[in-house]
Amino acid sequence: MECVAAIDVGGTTMKGGLVARDGTILYAGRRPTPRAEGPERVIAAISAFVGDLSRPRTGLRPVAVGLAVPGLVTATHAVFSAAFGWRDVPVSAFTDVDLPVVLGHDVRAAGEAELVHGVGGQDLLFLPIGTGIAGAVVLSGSSYGGAGGWAGQIGHIPVRPDGLPCACGQRGCLAAYASAGAIAARCGEPSAEHVLRRVRQGDEAAAEVWREAVEALALALATYTLLLDPALVVIGGGLSLAGDALLEPVRARLADRLAFRPAPDVQASRLGGHAGLLGAGLLGWRA
Amino acid sequence: MECVAAIDVGGTTMKGGLVARDGTILYAGRRPTPRAEGPERVIAAISAFVGDLSRPRTGLRPVAVGLAVPGLVTATHAVFSAAFGWRDVPVSAFTDVDLPVVLGHDVRAAGEAELVHGVGGQDLLFLPIGTGIAGAVVLSGSSYGGAGGWAGQIGHIPVRPDGLPCACGQRGCLAAYASAGAIAARCGEPSAEHVLRRVRQGDEAAAEVWREAVEALALALATYTLLLDPALVVIGGGLSLAGDALLEPVRARLADRLAFRPAPDVQASRLGGHAGLLGAGLLGWRA
Repeated sequence: MECVAAIDVGGTTMKGGLVARDGTILYAGRRPTPRAEGPERVIAAISAFVGDLSRPRTGLRPVAVGLAVPGLVTATHAVFSAAFGWRDVPVSAFTDVDLPVVLGHDVRAAGEAELVHGVGGQDLLFLPIGTGIAGAVVLSGSSYGGAGGWAGQIGHIPVRPDGLPCACGQRGCLAAYASAGAIAARCGEPSAEHVLRRVRQGDEAAAEVWREAVEALALALATYTLLLDPALVVIGGGLSLAGDALLEPVRARLADRLAFRPAPDVQASRLGGHAGLLGAGLLGWRA
Repeated sequence: MECVAAIDVGGTTMKGGLVARDGTILYAGRRPTPRAEGPERVIAAISAFVGDLSRPRTGLRPVAVGLAVPGLVTATHAVFSAAFGWRDVPVSAFTDVDLPVVLGHDVRAAGEAELVHGVGGQDLLFLPIGTGIAGAVVLSGSSYGGAGGWAGQIGHIPVRPDGLPCACGQRGCLAAYASAGAIAARCGEPSAEHVLRRVRQGDEAAAEVWREAVEALALALATYTLLLDPALVVIGGGLSLAGDALLEPVRARLADRLAFRPAPDVQASRLGGHAGLLGAGLLGWRA
């Protein structure tokens, strides 16, 4: 069966797989991203992963390769990545297999996967919430990258102008309140899931952190809605697994924040943890 | 000389004129918008204005009509305008002259005029600041309207979550701090120009209102920059006439608010009060 080799290169884990044109994942695997070992080692690990995915498997024949990476990316170069220390890495560096290869931005590729394989639609915000918060700004059916390729940094918009300090150096960023990482850290818990458990047990301190996360999201989504009038907001990433405990209060507070216009629908991603891999797959099919 | 008849229909004034293809304004006039007299009277006043502009003048022959109006607009219908009480008004209602007529959104048309006849560029925010604050979100060379036509309402994004009440029913809106109307009202002055005069005379209360306006603009522009990565912000409308008294502190505070990325350039419109009329002209040339 015809397929593409796809890798979504995350900060700690690379998710790789073989993806059919209709989005069926025919094979999937994970490897650690050797980020601590330096820029070259990450490139070498990706190259090895591509090589393994491209080796003939019974009935599966990859015809192209799609690589979704963070930072500033064009189809042919990983221009800049603070996470990996990359500067102007050409796509050819990532593999020596003899297949067409296309690079793309990880979050924007995942947003396009939501469009094609998930909820659908033309004008939406795809908002994966995990350790941090990113955004894919999908306008008229495609992800918008901005003048310089840096659009979508919704995690660092100032929702509370003089609020909590953020690791980015600013104050009051959305991510300082509403990332799964921040929610966990503010409660001294290992994960947002642990915080949610305390909320459900009636813990008032945890409930307050959760409410502040919800309010920060409502503020950011109100701003996004007023600026860009999306039909839909799709929340992905680990925090979306909280389901209605997150979505219901966010919908309610978003509607409250918008006095003179209706709120867009807010849904959880239907692709679960696969949006990134399917996004990389779309890049491959584009090759 | 070939030209189009163009009218920019504002809340209190209609600016009409004859515009050549290169943006030269060959004739310009103003009339009051009879908004208090009801939806039909505004339509009739526009129709009469179009009629007068289309009457043959020496050497000037309009070949089409462009009408820039507020609210929710398609090329063929003024779908909804709260300002004028319009609902689904077809373009044919606005004129009985025998010329092709195109409707468009006033602020978005002005934003496109900035692109074509003003500062140029592909990815920018055009931000006219007057009685209120609007925005034209220009992406990859054209104005973006959103899923339902309501994009660009940057005047009502919550820059101070629990801040000043706004006439729109929300709190902490950009316009509640930084519109020329709000700046004047907060100081009990007839105009923002009067406030600026007090600032220059060392009046501390006026200076504080001005600083809060600058900070609100910096917050809104930081948010816009992080979301959409524009190359340029063009401030128009009456407040842009404040020049460096506005632009210099806004540039400085915007750069301060952005910890990890450069700020886009912030300029005043080069079209002065003509952006709206030239935008209506572009609509006419599109016909």
